[in-house]
Amino acid sequence: MSEAVKTYLQQNRDKHLSELGDFLSIPSISALSEHKEDVRHAAEWMESSLKDAGVENVRLMETGGHPVVYGDWLHAAGKPTVLIYGHYDVQPVDPVELWETPPFEAHIRDEKIYARGASDDKGQTFMHVKAIEALLKVNGELPVNVKFLIEGEEEIGSVHLDSFVEEHRELLAADVLVISDTPMLEKGRPAICSGLRGLSSLQIDVKGAKGDLHSGLYGGGVQNSIHALVQILDSMRDSEGRVTVAGFYDKVEELNKDERAAMAELNFDEENLQKELEVPELFGEKGYSMIEQTWIRPTLEINGIYGGFQGEGVKTVIPSEAHAKITCRLVPTQDPDEIASLIEKHIAANTPKGVTVTTKRFDSGKPFAAPVDHPAFQIAAKAYEEVYSAPVAFTRMGGSIPVVETFDRILQVPIVLMGFGLPSENFHAPNEHFHLENFDKGLQTISTYLEKLGTQLNN
Amino acid sequence: MSEAVKTYLQQNRDKHLSELGDFLSIPSISALSEHKEDVRHAAEWMESSLKDAGVENVRLMETGGHPVVYGDWLHAAGKPTVLIYGHYDVQPVDPVELWETPPFEAHIRDEKIYARGASDDKGQTFMHVKAIEALLKVNGELPVNVKFLIEGEEEIGSVHLDSFVEEHRELLAADVLVISDTPMLEKGRPAICSGLRGLSSLQIDVKGAKGDLHSGLYGGGVQNSIHALVQILDSMRDSEGRVTVAGFYDKVEELNKDERAAMAELNFDEENLQKELEVPELFGEKGYSMIEQTWIRPTLEINGIYGGFQGEGVKTVIPSEAHAKITCRLVPTQDPDEIASLIEKHIAANTPKGVTVTTKRFDSGKPFAAPVDHPAFQIAAKAYEEVYSAPVAFTRMGGSIPVVETFDRILQVPIVLMGFGLPSENFHAPNEHFHLENFDKGLQTISTYLEKLGTQLNN
Repeated sequence: MSEAVKTYLQQNRDKHLSELGDFLSIPSISALSEHKEDVRHAAEWMESSLKDAGVENVRLMETGGHPVVYGDWLHAAGKPTVLIYGHYDVQPVDPVELWETPPFEAHIRDEKIYARGASDDKGQTFMHVKAIEALLKVNGELPVNVKFLIEGEEEIGSVHLDSFVEEHRELLAADVLVISDTPMLEKGRPAICSGLRGLSSLQIDVKGAKGDLHSGLYGGGVQNSIHALVQILDSMRDSEGRVTVAGFYDKVEELNKDERAAMAELNFDEENLQKELEVPELFGEKGYSMIEQTWIRPTLEINGIYGGFQGEGVKTVIPSEAHAKITCRLVPTQDPDEIASLIEKHIAANTPKGVTVTTKRFDSGKPFAAPVDHPAFQIAAKAYEEVYSAPVAFTRMGGSIPVVETFDRILQVPIVLMGFGLPSENFHAPNEHFHLENFDKGLQTISTYLEKLGTQLNN
Repeated sequence: MSEAVKTYLQQNRDKHLSELGDFLSIPSISALSEHKEDVRHAAEWMESSLKDAGVENVRLMETGGHPVVYGDWLHAAGKPTVLIYGHYDVQPVDPVELWETPPFEAHIRDEKIYARGASDDKGQTFMHVKAIEALLKVNGELPVNVKFLIEGEEEIGSVHLDSFVEEHRELLAADVLVISDTPMLEKGRPAICSGLRGLSSLQIDVKGAKGDLHSGLYGGGVQNSIHALVQILDSMRDSEGRVTVAGFYDKVEELNKDERAAMAELNFDEENLQKELEVPELFGEKGYSMIEQTWIRPTLEINGIYGGFQGEGVKTVIPSEAHAKITCRLVPTQDPDEIASLIEKHIAANTPKGVTVTTKRFDSGKPFAAPVDHPAFQIAAKAYEEVYSAPVAFTRMGGSIPVVETFDRILQVPIVLMGFGLPSENFHAPNEHFHLENFDKGLQTISTYLEKLGTQLNN
């Protein structure tokens, strides 16, 4: 990165942090309708921040819900185009009494900035705006073409983003998509997230007799819907944690030795996690480490179960109905619909006598694997390494980020998930914060990355 | 039975039915505190009815709740003493809109009397009073000594009866206890209930991590409390309906060929029940008929289960907690505490990794088996057969009647459960009724029984 850009960032640090404080003071909680105006206010704040930075064509674009903020700068002829995605909405703040300082008042303590959205994702989105501002102010131009897409519904499942991206394919076309909304490995250890698990989910409904029966009169002679459900569910996983649905693992990508070795080198502290979660021991599929179990192995989890009497004491009833909700986390190259079909087939083959069983499907999402051999990833790694003087870990995440699946499917562009938050920064929880070390280094890494993309990536 | 008694009953039939109508018009719902005065009114009605019949020492005896009505006639020197138990309280009447005539207005249609309590148990208790009245009025004396114990809390679990019986052992001492509160097999087929199942109940609580976890971040590496619970529950019963808890069947009384043949002769209509319950098929322990499964075989039922997300759609959570409620119906000579211990031991031996499991016990009750070879039962059977011209079935019931267990334990007296209701008479439901055929024949059977006891039972 040029010294001039570095100097600009240093000289304007206080001003930038003060601006970020303004941005963080807007309670843009997308999940709560009483904050609808605040969410819009945050969009307008971002709009004007982009304009001030020198971004062009900045505007709010309406969706069925909260608006998208768009802007671009497209004067780097012959250079690649970088689409930057972020979100200006935040999570609710309950329980608010656990916050040491008010969630919508930015406070800096111990070189960390505290507020809802400091890390997820206002702080990280803001850094991209300021990196662009620095490059434009210092050089009068950018090393690449840039487009911004900042949405306001990420925390409520990006409900309108699918159709927005679909409708604006042309406008959003790019050579690289950059998102800063995933964590680093830990302090000083940058990471690029190269894979996300997909999702398949369904509900199982078991029906026995027409109504609840008296367990004295009928007990022993009629199937119990909860027993039947329990039998079905228990048939899906063995006691070692391996899923026993036929065909479930057929399309699971087996990682090679090197990839597994790289994960082992991360030295993930399982003992510490066990203490933190307060479980007697960790538990997962045999033959895999915790990192592997949660990153590269698929799961079948029962998320909820209910049926019969749930009050105090006891009620001698044979319940007519029992229900369970199941989600599978999927890995490349499992297909959500195919997995749902396999589970439905398993249930049909394992339905006990005396009940009828139906299923219904819910959300699904394809697993995501980044093409990490694409130069966009290698260049990002170099930018990180230059600023942090530490190797970059290519990590995976056990969860899903629905927008990633959307972009991957519709825009078909390499997606670089380069985050600057730390796993310990309480995103979605009270006392969310962001380390200023990563605010400074993040600004440098982003600027460096854009510069390198301009010279090293062929568009 | 003497012709004179028969004639008395015929001549007074209308008067008796009109009195029963008065008794049935009192809304003595013990479960509802707004009917407290009505319940007492019913007790007073019974008190004066006993006095009118010629019973002596009649009085209300206070308990912690609704009063007990006591009365006796003890002038049959050298003859056995019969204790007659009944109850004057009734079930609630909701949904009241389903009643064809008001629940507390007796209506006679098609030779049945309709009202709440007509069968359970005002009608049947009243018959005992009128049988005594007939014998006293006609003969000036009774063939046996008689004591009445009519309570007002049967429909709320006889909450104060245990301590009342304990405190009044002497007063209640008898050679036979007669209760008319169980059904006949069907129209024209009298039955004496010779066994009731007992009960053992407990709750299982499974605890995983300190709180619900994100199934993306942790799924696959941490035990799921619902999976663990499902595994425990499924280990308790095989897919054929047999309980797999070690030692569970050790003390189960195996019935001999004759007893099983007698049950088979009852020709219970399983197909009809399957249709009525709207189940695809009946289901129970292999090798036993539905009658046997529900009368003479023990069960382990899951009465309720809950844990994790129970709302609409799906939530990708690994639930921290999961709970289930279990009851066992027990048969002679299983012991409720011993069975609870066996289950606890089974759970401890089958607890999956990564969770902690605790249990707590709830209500329990010993199974009851009448000593049917005792002459009190054989004489009762003869009385029935004389009046109904049909053989008596010695049946069992799958449920429990707590007062039976109380009397059995404290008074240690043969308990003859000779009921005159029919299973179809909607006890506990709208349009409860009682067949007048059994009102007439019941009065004759009771009178005959008392006469026979006086001559055939040695005290």
